[in-house]
Amino acid sequence: MELRALAERVAEKFPVRERDLRRTFEALLTTDNLWEVLDLTDIPIMTFCEIWEELAHAGLVEVSDSSLKLTPKGRELAASLEITPIRDFACPRCKGRGIEIELLKEVAEKFKAIASSRPEAIRDYDQGYVLEEVTVARVALMWQKGDLAGLNLMVLGDDDLVSVAASLTGAPKRVTVIDIDERLLDFIQKVSDEEGLKIQVLKHDLRYPLPEELQGAFDTFITDPTESFKGMKAFLSRSLSCLKGPGSAGYFGFTRREASLKKWQAIQKFLLEKGAVITDIIDDFNVYANWPYMESMRAWKHLPIRVLPQKEWYKSAHYRIELLEKPGPDTEVFPLDLYDEETATV
Amino acid sequence: MELRALAERVAEKFPVRERDLRRTFEALLTTDNLWEVLDLTDIPIMTFCEIWEELAHAGLVEVSDSSLKLTPKGRELAASLEITPIRDFACPRCKGRGIEIELLKEVAEKFKAIASSRPEAIRDYDQGYVLEEVTVARVALMWQKGDLAGLNLMVLGDDDLVSVAASLTGAPKRVTVIDIDERLLDFIQKVSDEEGLKIQVLKHDLRYPLPEELQGAFDTFITDPTESFKGMKAFLSRSLSCLKGPGSAGYFGFTRREASLKKWQAIQKFLLEKGAVITDIIDDFNVYANWPYMESMRAWKHLPIRVLPQKEWYKSAHYRIELLEKPGPDTEVFPLDLYDEETATV
Repeated sequence: MELRALAERVAEKFPVRERDLRRTFEALLTTDNLWEVLDLTDIPIMTFCEIWEELAHAGLVEVSDSSLKLTPKGRELAASLEITPIRDFACPRCKGRGIEIELLKEVAEKFKAIASSRPEAIRDYDQGYVLEEVTVARVALMWQKGDLAGLNLMVLGDDDLVSVAASLTGAPKRVTVIDIDERLLDFIQKVSDEEGLKIQVLKHDLRYPLPEELQGAFDTFITDPTESFKGMKAFLSRSLSCLKGPGSAGYFGFTRREASLKKWQAIQKFLLEKGAVITDIIDDFNVYANWPYMESMRAWKHLPIRVLPQKEWYKSAHYRIELLEKPGPDTEVFPLDLYDEETATV
Repeated sequence: MELRALAERVAEKFPVRERDLRRTFEALLTTDNLWEVLDLTDIPIMTFCEIWEELAHAGLVEVSDSSLKLTPKGRELAASLEITPIRDFACPRCKGRGIEIELLKEVAEKFKAIASSRPEAIRDYDQGYVLEEVTVARVALMWQKGDLAGLNLMVLGDDDLVSVAASLTGAPKRVTVIDIDERLLDFIQKVSDEEGLKIQVLKHDLRYPLPEELQGAFDTFITDPTESFKGMKAFLSRSLSCLKGPGSAGYFGFTRREASLKKWQAIQKFLLEKGAVITDIIDDFNVYANWPYMESMRAWKHLPIRVLPQKEWYKSAHYRIELLEKPGPDTEVFPLDLYDEETATV
């Protein structure tokens, strides 16, 4: 049997390559847990569901006892293709991020205490926050790279509370956060008042360009955009527009759990066209806490089994860019519906 | 005093931004060792030399006792700009690479023993190899990503001996290495024979396209190109041409010690145009052993002080790409002189 033929059949609906099927087999040889498989394959969930259906149809995989399994026929195929389990070489100390947060222990502890009473993630704004240790690692990374100390930081959308962790270090000159969610803005404002952090908290809808006084005013941005291409463009256009110019830097998370590499390529082209250069892409840097509205995900009803995850599985790569040229004026309005099938995943 | 005015003066000769001067001050507040400063600033050496001259001319820096120092005037300026020392948050276990090689202990030990009698790096081919632990980490990374086990690996230029370390794992299906340096080819062939590694060893000059039988034949490539734009394009064109097609992956090191971000941007555009997407850029992944011909570097005579480095300082980022489309035919011949001032650094 040829993986290529199978891949071509799936590819009629979703962009999939022979490699993706191979990786799926590797993952199924490594674990029988759906969410671990989704984590390991690095394929958009909807594409994975489509792959699973084809493989099941071909008698290569099956669900048994709420577990994903290769059938004997599937195992035979894997062996004939010299497919073996995935080896995990992620550093156990930094979880593969490369960043040591032990040096920010006090900040990390204080941040954890503050975050314990944060507003829960809600679907209205496509929220889903990263683990507290990730937020602190993001801050450490910015500091190390010379993008934090003595500089103006803009956080666009902040359910991860980066503004709080960054301010707790005392390193930045000024921290500004914009968000559309008043629960979050109120929470950050309250923390800022109580801790004397002087965070500038502003309400803004990222479908619209930033107010003029925020454009060209920051050394660094950080954001965690929604995964649709239009949404991504909206978040990044606003983000780039807030930067002062050449030498300013930006950070954002981008996942392969929902976005295809085709979309990755489109985003990379967009960034380069805007005068940016990509300096870092750290895979699986961002690990997200499981969010309470899992069952209303678009992919939910397509999953091979509908069991809630017990551990974190949703991760994203962490990008860093630097501006080499001015990105040009940002005027486009994005009439964006986060749940529009067309603008959504893949 | 304005950093911008200083930056503009340097920029008449080399692309430099206010940020680069800020980073230079940060580095000089962190260490007085020339090579550590070069490591920390992430500015091409020639640009750094130019910056240093301007700063010295302005009375902001000086050399004293073979050390780089800020003058009192320089310190005052740094303080007024809220410039502080660089914070190092690199994970001490994996050195910021995110990769654990402890799991490949036996391979690593055997590889180290083999590499101890390797041919020395020579200037003729712009050689300079990475530490043994880095070569092993490169192999671990490929394995983890599903780019090694059961697959065909091509190593283009192998003073780092990746072919040997990869073969020692027993994971790949086939390992091929091409190089121009007969000393290296003989060494790898000898090791392969002694250890029964079955490495395919071929002589080839990367200024010319690959022989037809090597084109479209590999799942994964790894290379460590020279830093000139033409050299980079030559290495990467050959590398991409050896891949089977969509889903194939590639790895290469690219530095900021010699190449400007402008060149980074050009290389990224080139990769995207060729149908690739960048999936990982891991900063400072590659650490190079100091090479014996340091004093014949182009930058040597421009350095503020000419002392040899005591520790490793030359690092590069490790890129991973995946192909989404076929890169198209590779026919261009690059009449490349590695030491041509025009094609060389910046």
